Amino acid sequence: MPDPDLPLPRVPALTDRFASRTEGMTASEIRALFAVASRPEVVSLAGGMPNLAALPLDTLATEVAELIAKDGQVALQYGSAQGVPVLREQITEVMAVEGIRAHADDVVVTVGSQMALDLVTRLFCNPGDVVLAEGPSYVGALGSFAAYQAEVVHVPLDDDGLRPDALESTLARLARDGVVPKFLYTVPTFHNPAGVTLAVHRRPQVLELCRRYGVLVVEDNPYGLLGFTEEQYPALRSLDPDNVIYLGSFSKTFASGLRVGWALAPAAVRDKLVLAAESATLCPPTFNQLVVSRYLAGHDWLGQIKSFREMYRERRDAMLQALGTHLPSGCRWTHPEGGFFVWLTLPEGVDAKAMLPRAVRAQVAYASGTGFYAGPSSASLGARQLRLSFCYPTPERITEGVRRLAGVLNAELDVLDTFGSPSRTNVRRGPQTPTPDTT
Amino acid sequence: MPDPDLPLPRVPALTDRFASRTEGMTASEIRALFAVASRPEVVSLAGGMPNLAALPLDTLATEVAELIAKDGQVALQYGSAQGVPVLREQITEVMAVEGIRAHADDVVVTVGSQMALDLVTRLFCNPGDVVLAEGPSYVGALGSFAAYQAEVVHVPLDDDGLRPDALESTLARLARDGVVPKFLYTVPTFHNPAGVTLAVHRRPQVLELCRRYGVLVVEDNPYGLLGFTEEQYPALRSLDPDNVIYLGSFSKTFASGLRVGWALAPAAVRDKLVLAAESATLCPPTFNQLVVSRYLAGHDWLGQIKSFREMYRERRDAMLQALGTHLPSGCRWTHPEGGFFVWLTLPEGVDAKAMLPRAVRAQVAYASGTGFYAGPSSASLGARQLRLSFCYPTPERITEGVRRLAGVLNAELDVLDTFGSPSRTNVRRGPQTPTPDTT
Repeated sequence: MPDPDLPLPRVPALTDRFASRTEGMTASEIRALFAVASRPEVVSLAGGMPNLAALPLDTLATEVAELIAKDGQVALQYGSAQGVPVLREQITEVMAVEGIRAHADDVVVTVGSQMALDLVTRLFCNPGDVVLAEGPSYVGALGSFAAYQAEVVHVPLDDDGLRPDALESTLARLARDGVVPKFLYTVPTFHNPAGVTLAVHRRPQVLELCRRYGVLVVEDNPYGLLGFTEEQYPALRSLDPDNVIYLGSFSKTFASGLRVGWALAPAAVRDKLVLAAESATLCPPTFNQLVVSRYLAGHDWLGQIKSFREMYRERRDAMLQALGTHLPSGCRWTHPEGGFFVWLTLPEGVDAKAMLPRAVRAQVAYASGTGFYAGPSSASLGARQLRLSFCYPTPERITEGVRRLAGVLNAELDVLDTFGSPSRTNVRRGPQTPTPDTT
Repeated sequence: MPDPDLPLPRVPALTDRFASRTEGMTASEIRALFAVASRPEVVSLAGGMPNLAALPLDTLATEVAELIAKDGQVALQYGSAQGVPVLREQITEVMAVEGIRAHADDVVVTVGSQMALDLVTRLFCNPGDVVLAEGPSYVGALGSFAAYQAEVVHVPLDDDGLRPDALESTLARLARDGVVPKFLYTVPTFHNPAGVTLAVHRRPQVLELCRRYGVLVVEDNPYGLLGFTEEQYPALRSLDPDNVIYLGSFSKTFASGLRVGWALAPAAVRDKLVLAAESATLCPPTFNQLVVSRYLAGHDWLGQIKSFREMYRERRDAMLQALGTHLPSGCRWTHPEGGFFVWLTLPEGVDAKAMLPRAVRAQVAYASGTGFYAGPSSASLGARQLRLSFCYPTPERITEGVRRLAGVLNAELDVLDTFGSPSRTNVRRGPQTPTPDTT
């Protein structure tokens, strides 16, 4: 036996012992930015935090107090890995608003829909497997795909969302190489970050293509109920229950800090999903599930969502108006009908990421585009692009933020005019180039 | 483009598309049992649910209501992936009780310590990597190791916990085969399921061996503050800060349904842990973290733990007394000085798993031993063993449960006497065999 009085042997470098998947785990530039952008003098158009100002906090406080006092022994105790049955039942009613018919048995409650996404990737992706995703795509999804060493192939979108023609050619190309992607990850409605929505007529096309090529669809729908018009888009899951895993969340329609999301999956997947969830967290917090359940049972939650929609619409309007007023020509941006985000493409020659420090000095922050693409192509694809969020600041702050952004951009363009490439000059002085896709 | 009026192509079998890691994801027999054991007429000695009866629910209700009413905009909002700073600071004070000196920067808050365990495995284990764990070991850990396709090599324990001699021979054997285990997973204090504690003099020995062989230590310590004597065991982390990742939890000292746990890790690991946490859930629930933070700040939490300890000690006493009174000779069980569990080894020839349905019919449930071992050897290692938990039922119910268990066991032994193997008969009729290890 070793002598306990001797000094301990040198410890090996722990980082040398990491699994190979940790190589893909790098800090997203969007998140790294949040610290800087959170200073009060900076107008942050960078984050995706929902605005909770409209929540009925006093009523909620009373109800949660009652929950603890009366049902604390249950609410503060472990629950099932799949989630509390009464909440799973209520979740089916929430999904019914978007045309989904489902059974509570097929719902798995997760710690935000991020966890559902992580677990679905865990279930399906071996290292090297291909996942299709819109380009640009949600940063949190790209993080999970990287954590499981999946390779992302982007499919471009336009103002009507994911392009079926591009999806078909991508699937055909991959098929020729013998590659069947494990799934298509898509945010069809009020896309993050692109701010576009998959047109109704494209939805069956996308589903048919995925079936034809044997590709599962993972539909991520955190914003579906946050539309600014009367149009209600049918969830992909409502059109093809057998080949779609649907991810939902209360983060944007109620409270993000509770971290309650869910997956709705065909039974064979759901069983494995519950097992994966169990090894990930044992069970989602019972307390949070019962808080959401009480809220759904005791409040006009659809009315609350209506007031969220009005608030976000007002902010979206402020942003679109400010963009139209202040941005120089050669810029192009999407016109979201719901959700939180506008996707902005800058004139050629401007590097959104390189411009960001100057923007922050001018007290406005955004999320530069490269972070929304996976792999080596991200630098080229996202270089001229950025995401502007209108969810959190007031309309006045949004207007001021866009004004500041325009100032920075004009200064950037002046520098480019003086020292930049001819192509840049052409864009600005000549007729406007054909509208590019948002990719 | 496809014709949207044509029927959709046949959907491929989703289960054929699973990643290879899903093969290891199977329902644990312990969890599968919970449904049966939860009927009110059954005395369940199977589960590991903490007893929350002593919690000050009314005060807590008032405080949480105040949190929502006053700080709801923060509490219900997203937070950092690493966890709320004020809680991380308080967690260092909780750990100080067990001799740990740490900085809040190195604490990562997780959704229960299960999530910390899952993420540590994600960071370190490639498929096929070896992890050392006590035999028997915590079911949730085995689940995470299986989910990442790590291979578990068990190291036996005895009444003084993990055996350093067995650890050394295991490490030496693996080293001869060129295998360096990624880490030793251990529950040194008040072990789940074995109910034993790593003796103080063994702790530096275990740490020295792991250093010598270049093996990281993952110390899981959910029960450390729930001892029944005045003895305070030093956490392994307090003895070797550089080579130990420490996992802690509020599930047993406050409320399991909040799912608040944490990891304390050396800085290089902590950074990657935060990234892994972000891709797993974005951030732990802000709400739950602030509830725990308020509880720690406003309550005599150590006094509350003291009352938990007294409650559990009374139940432990009831169980040990009942075991001594009712069980037939040839049984052996551990004498926990803290925690929730007694580990029972049955006379040779009795199969704990096969006996379980008869036990449940006699209205008592336990967790049979095989589930606490990984791999093909689990059947042989755990066949005669089972876990009895004394945390949840009242002392009277515990006594009644053990009485029922004794009845079932006696009937089992009678059948064995009549039809069983000679070896079995020898054990019961002859002199008692040497005390086996709890492995």
